[in-house]
Amino acid sequence: MSGRPLPLADQLDAACRFLREGDDFLVAAHVNPDGDAISSTLAVGEILRRLGKRYTLINETGNPPKFAFLAGDRVIEDDSLQPNLAFSRVVTVDCADYDRLGSVRRHILPDTPLLNIDHHPTNDGFGTVALLQPEAAATAQILYSLIQKLGLEWDKELATFVYTGLLTDTGGFRYANTTPEVMATASELLGWGVPGSELAERLLERLTLKQVRLLQRGLSSLSFSHGGRLAWVSVSHSDIQELEATSDDLENLVNYPRNIEGVEVGLLFKEIKPGSVKVSLRSAGTVNVAEVARLFGGGGHVRAAGCTVEGSLEHAVERVTGEAGKAWS
Amino acid sequence: MSGRPLPLADQLDAACRFLREGDDFLVAAHVNPDGDAISSTLAVGEILRRLGKRYTLINETGNPPKFAFLAGDRVIEDDSLQPNLAFSRVVTVDCADYDRLGSVRRHILPDTPLLNIDHHPTNDGFGTVALLQPEAAATAQILYSLIQKLGLEWDKELATFVYTGLLTDTGGFRYANTTPEVMATASELLGWGVPGSELAERLLERLTLKQVRLLQRGLSSLSFSHGGRLAWVSVSHSDIQELEATSDDLENLVNYPRNIEGVEVGLLFKEIKPGSVKVSLRSAGTVNVAEVARLFGGGGHVRAAGCTVEGSLEHAVERVTGEAGKAWS
Repeated sequence: MSGRPLPLADQLDAACRFLREGDDFLVAAHVNPDGDAISSTLAVGEILRRLGKRYTLINETGNPPKFAFLAGDRVIEDDSLQPNLAFSRVVTVDCADYDRLGSVRRHILPDTPLLNIDHHPTNDGFGTVALLQPEAAATAQILYSLIQKLGLEWDKELATFVYTGLLTDTGGFRYANTTPEVMATASELLGWGVPGSELAERLLERLTLKQVRLLQRGLSSLSFSHGGRLAWVSVSHSDIQELEATSDDLENLVNYPRNIEGVEVGLLFKEIKPGSVKVSLRSAGTVNVAEVARLFGGGGHVRAAGCTVEGSLEHAVERVTGEAGKAWS
Repeated sequence: MSGRPLPLADQLDAACRFLREGDDFLVAAHVNPDGDAISSTLAVGEILRRLGKRYTLINETGNPPKFAFLAGDRVIEDDSLQPNLAFSRVVTVDCADYDRLGSVRRHILPDTPLLNIDHHPTNDGFGTVALLQPEAAATAQILYSLIQKLGLEWDKELATFVYTGLLTDTGGFRYANTTPEVMATASELLGWGVPGSELAERLLERLTLKQVRLLQRGLSSLSFSHGGRLAWVSVSHSDIQELEATSDDLENLVNYPRNIEGVEVGLLFKEIKPGSVKVSLRSAGTVNVAEVARLFGGGGHVRAAGCTVEGSLEHAVERVTGEAGKAWS
């Protein structure tokens, strides 16, 4: 997209036209889809159904098992299964750039009209029509506005899709992106019968047995330095192999050292293969962990960053805790 | 209180009169105060300050350390330190009955006018004036209405007190009591500058080192039966002693077995003293754990119950898992 983005109202108008004028849509989300990606996919599908359109929902690997209950009997195609697709227009949801579509790109011709709906501030405005609201907490929040603009009737199902995106992208209404607008939208959606506590339980609280086993092993390695301001846990390659753990299973582990009283920086060391250690860095805000990660060729934000260190687990722990600890020396 | 309760608008009028007509107030919450009790205490204090009244805030043991940041330089008296009190009216917050005041009762004469503000459905209507809304998610939600009725100006501080009560009594907007009204109120309060993500981090996510150590030991005992539908963890008396763990530290542990995928009943066994085991029971809803707890002289609700079993940890595990497992046999 060149030049300044249009005002939101104009973007919404253009998006409504894009949806109304087409017949056959492909609705695609990013690789490794999260709650906002899946619920936005389902919400756009429901919008298109209401508008009487044909549509296919898709992403590179389909609907993760944890979101199966949300889709019900709707199908989100798994592109790795080589589905046969027919469409004349594309809607992408929650994709900051075209490459985030992963393998789904292979189906899309350069001149296929594409509507890009996203909330990432880094979105590069790819596609024919853009509906971008970088201040929105979730793509689902933008879809709320789109549904209102289209004048569609809310019901429990559509409200549940939108609520799920808000719930997951705000970490259960806990992150700093939980604005008054998010809560006002959530309030209205709950009024349509969204099972909020069931969604929170299924999507935010439920643990897999693997996660619990990893947590137990990770906690047994819990270590501190710098008067308790730095804390870390590590998971060895043999633990990861033995438990057949995925990066999804490991995702939340870094929050344990991070959330301990008095800790300013929490680290997680994952020996993803022998001799290669992925490091997750989290900060309470006083230390910029992106700067630490950059020393090892990684990057991120002030409070959340990542990098990969070659060598043994012990080596990675020594080097990264050494650099992170310089904040207090 | 005899007879039917007054309509909420009339109750609010009576509460406003009660506050406006008095001069010296004692504001008291229940023993073992939680987030709603503390934030409601602070909110009523702020209401009285705005009304130009004198007041003392109190509960049996004062302000728990985790809520110190919320109070700032406000004092919540610790009654066990025998404070010298002078007051002519009492306001109780979040107390379902008079005995919930614990030791604070010793300061209150039988004819002292008392305003009872609470949301517990079991509130027995003690006191002179009652402001009871059993459908409110938190006492703080009732105080929101009271502040509106009094026509007080909202600011960040007052909004933060009320938000904190909503946040903590809804488990971070996750429990079934998270109504559209709760979210609408939260939205409005965030608009006054409430640091929502900081509150969530401090009050919902922060762990003490003791909690982490207990979690580690508890998880090492994680066991399953009945095809993974029943799961439990146990903490021995020596663990509790060695870590100097309080029941507060142990509170959240039962959620780990409970939240594991496929688990329908999660149990926590705490050997609080040699030969005495406290059991926490949690259910996903299909099994009524109150019925199981009642077999051992305990009680509770369908989804959350408790009991105490005399004997060894092993004995308690065997007996309670045996009874809970009958649901599937």
